[in-house]
Amino acid sequence: MGNETYQDDEELMIADKPAEESARPDDRIDDERLDEENTLKADYVRSVRDALDEGDKSRVYDLVEPLHPADIADLLELFDRDDRHTLAEAITDLMSSDVIAELNDYVREDMMEALPAEAVAQIAEQLDTDDAVQLIEDLDEDDQQAILAELDDEDRVAIESALAYPEETAGRLMSHEVVAVPEHMTVGGLIDFLRENVDLANDFYEVFIVDHKHHPVGTCQLSWILRTPRNIALSDVMKRDQTLIPVSLDQEEVALMFQKYALISAAVVDESGRLVGQMTVDDVVHIISEEASEDALLMSGAGDGDINEPIREAYSSRVTWLIANLGTALIASLIIAYFGAAIEKLVALAILMPIVASIGGNAGTQTMAVAVRAIAMNQLTEANTMRILWRELRVAILNGLTIAVLIGLATGAIFTPMLGAVIALAMVINVVTAGLAGVMVPVIFERLKQDPAVASSVFVTMITDSMGFFAFLGLAVAAGLAN
Amino acid sequence: MGNETYQDDEELMIADKPAEESARPDDRIDDERLDEENTLKADYVRSVRDALDEGDKSRVYDLVEPLHPADIADLLELFDRDDRHTLAEAITDLMSSDVIAELNDYVREDMMEALPAEAVAQIAEQLDTDDAVQLIEDLDEDDQQAILAELDDEDRVAIESALAYPEETAGRLMSHEVVAVPEHMTVGGLIDFLRENVDLANDFYEVFIVDHKHHPVGTCQLSWILRTPRNIALSDVMKRDQTLIPVSLDQEEVALMFQKYALISAAVVDESGRLVGQMTVDDVVHIISEEASEDALLMSGAGDGDINEPIREAYSSRVTWLIANLGTALIASLIIAYFGAAIEKLVALAILMPIVASIGGNAGTQTMAVAVRAIAMNQLTEANTMRILWRELRVAILNGLTIAVLIGLATGAIFTPMLGAVIALAMVINVVTAGLAGVMVPVIFERLKQDPAVASSVFVTMITDSMGFFAFLGLAVAAGLAN
Repeated sequence: MGNETYQDDEELMIADKPAEESARPDDRIDDERLDEENTLKADYVRSVRDALDEGDKSRVYDLVEPLHPADIADLLELFDRDDRHTLAEAITDLMSSDVIAELNDYVREDMMEALPAEAVAQIAEQLDTDDAVQLIEDLDEDDQQAILAELDDEDRVAIESALAYPEETAGRLMSHEVVAVPEHMTVGGLIDFLRENVDLANDFYEVFIVDHKHHPVGTCQLSWILRTPRNIALSDVMKRDQTLIPVSLDQEEVALMFQKYALISAAVVDESGRLVGQMTVDDVVHIISEEASEDALLMSGAGDGDINEPIREAYSSRVTWLIANLGTALIASLIIAYFGAAIEKLVALAILMPIVASIGGNAGTQTMAVAVRAIAMNQLTEANTMRILWRELRVAILNGLTIAVLIGLATGAIFTPMLGAVIALAMVINVVTAGLAGVMVPVIFERLKQDPAVASSVFVTMITDSMGFFAFLGLAVAAGLAN
Repeated sequence: MGNETYQDDEELMIADKPAEESARPDDRIDDERLDEENTLKADYVRSVRDALDEGDKSRVYDLVEPLHPADIADLLELFDRDDRHTLAEAITDLMSSDVIAELNDYVREDMMEALPAEAVAQIAEQLDTDDAVQLIEDLDEDDQQAILAELDDEDRVAIESALAYPEETAGRLMSHEVVAVPEHMTVGGLIDFLRENVDLANDFYEVFIVDHKHHPVGTCQLSWILRTPRNIALSDVMKRDQTLIPVSLDQEEVALMFQKYALISAAVVDESGRLVGQMTVDDVVHIISEEASEDALLMSGAGDGDINEPIREAYSSRVTWLIANLGTALIASLIIAYFGAAIEKLVALAILMPIVASIGGNAGTQTMAVAVRAIAMNQLTEANTMRILWRELRVAILNGLTIAVLIGLATGAIFTPMLGAVIALAMVINVVTAGLAGVMVPVIFERLKQDPAVASSVFVTMITDSMGFFAFLGLAVAAGLAN
């Protein structure tokens, strides 16, 4: 590393410095304002808040100015709506398009709605097409039209064509700026072309080689180009084996492809195979995180699970879920009611029955979490469903027997041996049922093209609660314990 | 796009083609073997399985040969242990280091244990240091020593230094191969240097500029280098504002930094600030996915949640969880037992009480899922805890009132109006309690430096179950319904 000889070149042109270079000195981890987890320190936030409350706008500006755009976005997200608008007004110059692009969706929507259409259009023009689309796509139809009307023709056309694609598909999310060159071009030709067109694309990691029909025939990573002499044709350097993303592909599938094939960027093609854009891994990283974490939220009915979501939206998605669960709870209650007479005679049944249902519910949730995750990662497919089911069944039997022995002995000691046997057997039945349901319900929903994470939970709970009460109370009655 | 003029260069050297280029024709989406979700088709897998069962090794080889290494890895993961070994033997030539690197951790461990140390060492030598480390780190101490002894000195030293760092830190996961050049080097000097040292690093996206103490002072993206004339010094092009990763940083924090600052790669520095390696986004993508999804699994006690995990490990982590939940269920049972006499008098109490506990449990799980996620994403910090708590409280009150009205009316109609009022009030109390607990329990565990996802669930369930039964039964008794 570090070869120290070099040759002067004849060209004396001074290139423009890249836009991202800042005049700031080395920024290692910013210790004053950020803690070791890279979040804004509470003291620092408090000082900003105090300055805001005192109406000292210049001090607010001075405090915020050294922050990275992503951290300014974090800061804005920490404040509630009104304070946020006040803060934004105090630091107008710092509200660059980078900051806007980094904001949480709900916060950004809220702020855009507060601005006039011309202002939003101005911000949109500074952003890359995909970031501009993200800015506009969640606003009202009317607001969108007003903003589009204020844009330059070029920008408006680009954004409108992106909005023509459905949400959460490659077409909507892709970057329209892509470097595409013909097959016969040489490495030297490419370097010259890039030097003459300095504004071409912001950051790119590979160059796409296309044929006369604008179909991608190969890709060239920049690290290879730099290591190849100028006279070599790109078609000799390029990799022909490429991963192409159809413009209609769902974002979750795009993310999985990026992960599976360890991609940094990939070409997006339309139905006729023409190169229309590219997706880069930094966009995908956002999707991966979102998609991977949403299952936990979906399975509990927490909806978007974003703490910036307006309260009425959080309420409406969560209460819908709770009402669905009310329905399954009522089914369980009907079963208990059926055994009402038995409970009257032996109140120990009422004391013990929630244990069976509760453990069954936990076992079902465990298995469901594993199955939903495996389905999402494309690890549970038609090809191995039976194998996985058999595996989960064996785990469930082991779990069921273990818990059954523990609770059976305790119950036998506190109440009667027969009751101990009854609860032990009911426990095995319920845990095994939970294991089966935890795999099969998500699998069935997947085959029916429904999102397993959303729909399975209600059904799995219904099955485990019902079976729990039915098995325990039923066995107790059958064993003659409630005569 | 596509400037067609170029100049020939004097150099007539033919560069080596990059290793990744294959002789295969254009591979668009492989329709024969992969379905639209990019997973192996069941028919295809069956044909491989049939060939294996018949012992027809050459047909197995022909079927598998066209697959991408990542897909060969998927195929191996679909088979159980014995079949997998048979398959691996049939396709020995295809078992490249790329395939090994793509295997699921458990499957890879299993296969490495079946091979002699020299064979594993051979594979390790072909991998990049970080992939080789991943290969070796989960094996037994003895196996590790045996394999390390078989390696070249250079490789052994690199791997041992990586193993010296704790698991799941930047030091363990980083790539040791990094391009670092001095400040005074020009763009032209860099290009020449890269051309002379073609084997330098596999794929890289930026070049790090270091001072005489090997401290990073800036970075240069390759796309800028290609657009800059040869005579410009790198120190004029580079970005000084850089994100440096301490060698001891936890992998989850690394992943969050990559996401937050939209990084493609980043320099890793040791305690004295020396550049020791780099992390690239394709490594991080794997971590993001893992870390984002593990909360769902942890919160339900599903442990690793990997379907390839050996059964005894899956059993031991899940049953531990179920036993913990048995404990909390017993606490709830004690509360019910306390009100045993009341239940004997009014069996409707036994029929209705699970509803209150169940809805409370769901509401608690929802809130907990949101809070755990927000904590993991660094969105819930000291600076906004009170604000979030207040938000969740308001959502909980709305949810509680809604459910209370529904169940109160239904109960009033089926049983008595007073019972309806009692269950309605108990419902509000329990849902609000669940909302508070769902935020505060994870927050408290976070402050105590424990993983909120693991520990919170047991406590939140304990609180909601206990409060559910206590509020309902207690209010019923207080209202004189069980006299």
